[in-house]
Amino acid sequence: MTFPPKDPFLLTPGPLTTSATVKQAMLRDWGSRDGAFIELNARIRNRLVEMIGGGGEFAAVPLQGSGTFAVEAMIGTLVPRTGKLLVLVNGAYGHRMVRIAEVIGRAVTMIETAEDLPVSPEALDRALAEDPAVTHVAVVQCETTSGILNPLQRVAEVTARHGRALLVDAMSAFGALPLDARETPLQAVAASSNKCLEGVPGTGFVLVRRTALEAARGNAHSLTLDLHDQWRGFEANAQWRFTPPTHVLAAFDQALSEHAAEGGVAGRGARYRENCRILVEGLRAMGFETLLPDALQAPVIVTVRMPADPAFDFPHFYERMRKRGYVLYPGKLTVADSFRIGCIGRLGAAEMRGALEAIRNTLAEMGVASGRP
Amino acid sequence: MTFPPKDPFLLTPGPLTTSATVKQAMLRDWGSRDGAFIELNARIRNRLVEMIGGGGEFAAVPLQGSGTFAVEAMIGTLVPRTGKLLVLVNGAYGHRMVRIAEVIGRAVTMIETAEDLPVSPEALDRALAEDPAVTHVAVVQCETTSGILNPLQRVAEVTARHGRALLVDAMSAFGALPLDARETPLQAVAASSNKCLEGVPGTGFVLVRRTALEAARGNAHSLTLDLHDQWRGFEANAQWRFTPPTHVLAAFDQALSEHAAEGGVAGRGARYRENCRILVEGLRAMGFETLLPDALQAPVIVTVRMPADPAFDFPHFYERMRKRGYVLYPGKLTVADSFRIGCIGRLGAAEMRGALEAIRNTLAEMGVASGRP
Repeated sequence: MTFPPKDPFLLTPGPLTTSATVKQAMLRDWGSRDGAFIELNARIRNRLVEMIGGGGEFAAVPLQGSGTFAVEAMIGTLVPRTGKLLVLVNGAYGHRMVRIAEVIGRAVTMIETAEDLPVSPEALDRALAEDPAVTHVAVVQCETTSGILNPLQRVAEVTARHGRALLVDAMSAFGALPLDARETPLQAVAASSNKCLEGVPGTGFVLVRRTALEAARGNAHSLTLDLHDQWRGFEANAQWRFTPPTHVLAAFDQALSEHAAEGGVAGRGARYRENCRILVEGLRAMGFETLLPDALQAPVIVTVRMPADPAFDFPHFYERMRKRGYVLYPGKLTVADSFRIGCIGRLGAAEMRGALEAIRNTLAEMGVASGRP
Repeated sequence: MTFPPKDPFLLTPGPLTTSATVKQAMLRDWGSRDGAFIELNARIRNRLVEMIGGGGEFAAVPLQGSGTFAVEAMIGTLVPRTGKLLVLVNGAYGHRMVRIAEVIGRAVTMIETAEDLPVSPEALDRALAEDPAVTHVAVVQCETTSGILNPLQRVAEVTARHGRALLVDAMSAFGALPLDARETPLQAVAASSNKCLEGVPGTGFVLVRRTALEAARGNAHSLTLDLHDQWRGFEANAQWRFTPPTHVLAAFDQALSEHAAEGGVAGRGARYRENCRILVEGLRAMGFETLLPDALQAPVIVTVRMPADPAFDFPHFYERMRKRGYVLYPGKLTVADSFRIGCIGRLGAAEMRGALEAIRNTLAEMGVASGRP
């Protein structure tokens, strides 16, 4: 891997560090209605469906914009205007789905747990038994707010047993954590080019059960965010309805090739787990405490409690780490004063050890004796 | 300018051919909440406002997605739920604004003229006098369907005289055709990174009068497409609410520098007018007829009537032109069987002459005696 000299490593929930070859794929201009570009898109769509074992049952609907655009499109297109959404919330991205439903005028309810606890399949079971109006359940696979892994399989089984449809926000997990639609009953899953798939930001996608897409005509609250219409466009002539981010898609195509070359979801997940292990062990050796116990920690982003040492000051710590070439992420938590360190993107053991070394040096420079909270 | 060997020139309404330096600006990864990226966005936003002489009156609100996302956001955010939109239509992009209003549930009416005629300020004047319910008027500055230039100044004056607000879709004109908010009364104008500004596709923007943005809270039909909320985000901490297309924005920043270096709107417009003149003269010399008289032709895209010679076949013509390195664009017109040749993007007189030479050779190869319709 080569980087321009001043590019810091991005230890964030995204945008992430991408490979040089992914970025170089953007050095070409593509005609959006030209044959070569149409093939590129077909390849992307097929690969995404294969990644969840979606076979003929699912269709990939890419959508311009960030991951949140894809999530809004998923909710707006699949939850009918007369439907009702139940969101399992344990962080900012769960809350965001509730907000989307409110803004676009869908009936919505939520079950909230604390940010350091997984969502509760048992509470979901009770809620679905009590509220027959709920047509759809939504959950975040890995809630980037804290980095927690939610019990997706059990949520899916409860939802299916009650005959409701499941919508998954897999933004920060897709491509690194296993998700097989043949084993996990779901109606749709939304993600983006720029998390574990290591493309650049600018496009999201939703994988949707074809029967649900077919039934969704006229549901959407928006023209540009209408996944049914977007899908019909792709099926009709393999083209985007509206100007696609051609360079971003060329990078995404390259990123998916690199994902396959790394061994797909298993290979990508193994690297991230190793990144996460190195990071957490190294942080603990310096006295830092992680918010989550290891059993709940997804290998995506680690929430670290703020050190108690009065010499520690996060803005200064951030700036000094940045000068050393590592961009961190301020926390968003309500349960704990914290900051976050991502371990996804085109980074490996060497970069994790480099980050730990930079943290050690920064603490020494600041006169912080320990990371202990 | 250098291009990878097989990149064809894009003679389309977009995505367009961009400069090598614009594409090379995408070879870096940016943290979206990092200081350097925040500065880059502030620079983009300021430059866009300056381009319409917007001073302290207007704010630039960039939005993820294609230009149509920006147009939908403009309509959905600025036309209140109790408002009514009147769209002046003479092509696909006018129709698209009508469709957006219908889908998002805004009252809408239109005045349609044929695709080869400008929209009518006189008809608008009568309609506004007759229908006091209309709160907003929308018009496309250059309708890419045909390449026609609409009488924006007169439309703006009529709209202002009736005390209504004007929304402009300047997608294919912004940055090459003059638009000064001090002379042309308007409430908002939407455009994208990838037309005359010669960035890559993946972001749009709307320049909105600040008083209108302030009054627009709660109007929007969507969370991601809410320009008020997006603007408040920028004003609060200069950051995007949701993951921005960082690489696309780095390219856009570079593209705006190159736009300024070329002499801004005047310089860019002069190159495109020269491109258009060379193209139209050369086509006419081969017997082709343009749809539009010169007075109505915007220097953006030229609609050419299909030749009558039975040896001419557009799909073959397209493929042969593509092999020669020039991507054309099939027509979308209802008034005439035609195809289109764009003259915007990082192309100059040499590429226009090259395209004409390729057309001449292709016609000869196909045994087409003349381009005459």
